[in-house]
Amino acid sequence: MRFSKYYVKTLKENPKEAEIESHKLLLRAGMIKKLASGVYSYLPLGYKTLRKVENIVREEMEKAGALELHMPVLQPAELWKESGRWDVMGEEMMRLKDRHMRDFVLGPTHEEVITDIIRNDIFSYKALPVNLYQIQTKFRDERRPRFGLMRGREFLMKDGYSFSTNKEGLDIEFENMKKAYSNIFKRCGLDFRIVDADSGAIGGSGSNEFHVIANSGEDELIFCDNCHYGANVEKATNTIIDQIKEEPKEIKLVDTPNVGTIEEVCGFLNADVKQSVKSLVYKDLGTDKLYVVLIRGDFEANEVKVKNAIGAIEIAMATDEDIKEAGLFKGYIGPYKLKEINEHITIIADDSIVGIPNQIMGGNKENTHYININYDRDYKADMVLDLRTVREGDVCSICGEPLRVARGIECGHIFKLGTKYSEAMNAKVLDENGKEVVLEMGCYGIGIGRTMAAAIEQNNDENGIIWSSNIAPFVVDVIVANIKNEAQSKLGDELYNALQESGIETIYDDRKERAGFKFKDADLIGFPFKVVCGKKSEEGIIELKIRRTGETIELHKDEVVNEIKELMKKY
Amino acid sequence: MRFSKYYVKTLKENPKEAEIESHKLLLRAGMIKKLASGVYSYLPLGYKTLRKVENIVREEMEKAGALELHMPVLQPAELWKESGRWDVMGEEMMRLKDRHMRDFVLGPTHEEVITDIIRNDIFSYKALPVNLYQIQTKFRDERRPRFGLMRGREFLMKDGYSFSTNKEGLDIEFENMKKAYSNIFKRCGLDFRIVDADSGAIGGSGSNEFHVIANSGEDELIFCDNCHYGANVEKATNTIIDQIKEEPKEIKLVDTPNVGTIEEVCGFLNADVKQSVKSLVYKDLGTDKLYVVLIRGDFEANEVKVKNAIGAIEIAMATDEDIKEAGLFKGYIGPYKLKEINEHITIIADDSIVGIPNQIMGGNKENTHYININYDRDYKADMVLDLRTVREGDVCSICGEPLRVARGIECGHIFKLGTKYSEAMNAKVLDENGKEVVLEMGCYGIGIGRTMAAAIEQNNDENGIIWSSNIAPFVVDVIVANIKNEAQSKLGDELYNALQESGIETIYDDRKERAGFKFKDADLIGFPFKVVCGKKSEEGIIELKIRRTGETIELHKDEVVNEIKELMKKY
Repeated sequence: MRFSKYYVKTLKENPKEAEIESHKLLLRAGMIKKLASGVYSYLPLGYKTLRKVENIVREEMEKAGALELHMPVLQPAELWKESGRWDVMGEEMMRLKDRHMRDFVLGPTHEEVITDIIRNDIFSYKALPVNLYQIQTKFRDERRPRFGLMRGREFLMKDGYSFSTNKEGLDIEFENMKKAYSNIFKRCGLDFRIVDADSGAIGGSGSNEFHVIANSGEDELIFCDNCHYGANVEKATNTIIDQIKEEPKEIKLVDTPNVGTIEEVCGFLNADVKQSVKSLVYKDLGTDKLYVVLIRGDFEANEVKVKNAIGAIEIAMATDEDIKEAGLFKGYIGPYKLKEINEHITIIADDSIVGIPNQIMGGNKENTHYININYDRDYKADMVLDLRTVREGDVCSICGEPLRVARGIECGHIFKLGTKYSEAMNAKVLDENGKEVVLEMGCYGIGIGRTMAAAIEQNNDENGIIWSSNIAPFVVDVIVANIKNEAQSKLGDELYNALQESGIETIYDDRKERAGFKFKDADLIGFPFKVVCGKKSEEGIIELKIRRTGETIELHKDEVVNEIKELMKKY
Repeated sequence: MRFSKYYVKTLKENPKEAEIESHKLLLRAGMIKKLASGVYSYLPLGYKTLRKVENIVREEMEKAGALELHMPVLQPAELWKESGRWDVMGEEMMRLKDRHMRDFVLGPTHEEVITDIIRNDIFSYKALPVNLYQIQTKFRDERRPRFGLMRGREFLMKDGYSFSTNKEGLDIEFENMKKAYSNIFKRCGLDFRIVDADSGAIGGSGSNEFHVIANSGEDELIFCDNCHYGANVEKATNTIIDQIKEEPKEIKLVDTPNVGTIEEVCGFLNADVKQSVKSLVYKDLGTDKLYVVLIRGDFEANEVKVKNAIGAIEIAMATDEDIKEAGLFKGYIGPYKLKEINEHITIIADDSIVGIPNQIMGGNKENTHYININYDRDYKADMVLDLRTVREGDVCSICGEPLRVARGIECGHIFKLGTKYSEAMNAKVLDENGKEVVLEMGCYGIGIGRTMAAAIEQNNDENGIIWSSNIAPFVVDVIVANIKNEAQSKLGDELYNALQESGIETIYDDRKERAGFKFKDADLIGFPFKVVCGKKSEEGIIELKIRRTGETIELHKDEVVNEIKELMKKY
């Protein structure tokens, strides 16, 4: 493709509306264009990359035995009423009435439609399992659309659904999709992690998220590069090591005047902070009930974990006034004999505190602390579970290696839905024994546009985007330094043709512009390789520039195609 | 692909909702499924064919130098107000409000969006021409959706738009697209005709429709297979031949008692019907004004042409009462001295009557006719233009060969929009002379789903669909007659693998069903070729059945791949 015949409109300045790199760079490189808040057109260059991601998804789905179908955007309200989601979905779901005043939904997802298809087509276990997917536009009326392709109101998704007669069948489909999704993100050239999206307390490994690692990611992830354990920080767990070992001693109440933090208390008492128990007071904003959360002195509580443990919709740290009213003393709270002061407070403990011998904790009086308190012997919590925030270097509870922390962008999600929709919508078949069973359903989604944006978040520098060869709009940009120089021009033509013929997608910058201007565009758009026909063109020598490394290699023209084929495996 | 792993749900019975063959067969073959009135899901088999049509379109567009982009479904109302279509589009346009109560349109087409992109990106003739297209879902809230994919409310279209600095540039893009569209329909294996969609009277060759020939087509077409002239019957013209030649004679009013039709009059007068002029009275239902339409006795007037000539929204034949009130006599009306009887009647003449010498026509009195009336010498019409219906065998006005008549389904439409949108939306550039010019725009559409349905309307029999190889969901169906027979099974496996490896898309009916049952499904779905492994399997002999011709060929297994490759060129 010749630049002069192509549609490329790059921008010098960062658009004001854009907050994150992918949004800025997609606009500046002329890959997308805003039509309305959260609604973008893909210009030819952007659409080429979108289609490449789409095709990788399609190929891996086919390889995994999933079949492609296509379900409508317009969905009748009746199906959503049947599943119970018509009332639940709220303002995020876009709705409209047709000319006959019938209610329709602009599909934000297709569980209802696919379940309707299956329940009308499949009546026997013999036709199962099925695994169907589509690549289709979705709609979600975000209150505050932002970040370009990252959180739009109209966006392209791959969504897939599997149906099996039993849980074992669902497990097989789930693992199958997990593998396919890994292949997809690998082929897109992305550094990604699979994380557990279910809290262990609630329901096992029923849901996995695929996160592309990037500093701008909305989610904090904990993962182990040894055993591939991964979880959101709200769900991550670790093994508690360096536990102090001691024989139980006798309880003492000691004066601790003028000490504030738990570190100060331990300093004053000449004790290890790992022996102390912090008591944090939270309030359920729905019920106004108070909860004391116990955690080892050197750990931090994770508020989402606490909220889930309480079963609250919203919680907050209790105010000074709340604490006072409850009969407690800020800075001197402890679980020992707490219920004697206030029997309405629930005590929930992080499991880190159970094994600490001779604990240090607040004395429930001004300026006092207990020492030598032992769990079980002296007090018990109402609940013990994992409430702590896992940190970089903490120990993986599966393999014992150090855990890592990074931010991620959720680009894929696979989920064991079980019978949620098939039950509500009466999707049943006869099994091998002629018994009616409710179908076990899985659903599997990838944000196509979001993956494209995440690739940019992960791969960019001050000059622009750095695409991997597999999803770059063009792999090579042939640049003639001086278009008026005949030898350069001739060599450019020759190499452009040779690259095209060898199946490497190439754009040829034949514009009458300065070389520097062309380099800037090439770097901004992020073509993986530049082939520059410059001063040594008469000798048939070109410069090959690698976008990712900044390296420049001098090559004879005959070496170019093979060298790029090799480099494409790497970049 | 193995049948047992594929999603195939064929129906024995014709669904009641379906009126035309493509609708019946798409449902029965399990290619589509209704979700709501005019809204269909494509099941895997149907989606495969849709994608094949889509890819042919894509390839031909790329070949023609058009660039693919992707514009949103959601379009802000502001753009439609700017173009003036917000108020014009009426109930067919689906509209909704977002959560902030802003008005949006579900794109029925994208002229506004593309013009908005271009006016923001392109400021100089240097960046022109551009020709951009997309393959995108469209929405139209049909009052009465019907005929399955033929007239839905959500449907897939290829729509393209070109922008040029002047009319000559637009002409080039238009011709370029005309050629590309012809290639597309050819590659889909369709018998199609290009017809003029503009009446010659109004504006030249500014618009062409691409019709797939089928008896169920909504449009009657006139075309010439010699010179490729084509038009809708409302717009078609022909050359008038067998004109009588005579010297003008003297006018006579003759008695013509008890004769009704023009043929009877001419019989009574012993004259050629080609010498007679029929006078038909029409009424503009808007203004109630009467029009006398003159046409040669052996021709029929085309009501759409008459309506367009009058400039009316609706017309009808005048009633007996209308005629009486106007002072005329039914069966005896003629243009000679007509205005003396009623000066308010407008006379419009088909150009066939101008050259008739010594015309026979009504005498404007009961039981009388004039003979020897001559146009120009004795009377004049207020307007002369082409008002007749062209018939099978009429003479092509371009090349003189006989014209043909057939019904067609409009699947493509290319249109010179000129400055309609660019003017309204202020899309201008500077031309070579630094002068501001309004862009000349063309638009080019193909109904992807509609083309798929039209292919079925044109190609089916009592057993089902007959796909061309290029758009069949699978090209070959390998059928093992008796799955329990080892030799047959082994040969089936072998041929399935050989066909797949040679790149021929093959489905393998490995189901435990009777051969006849499998044949029925294969015929219904319409695979172009069946490879049947039957009784001669041990000798390595199979039967190759050609769906279109019904032919059966015995082949050795080693010949199968090559034979099918040859046949694919034809079927």
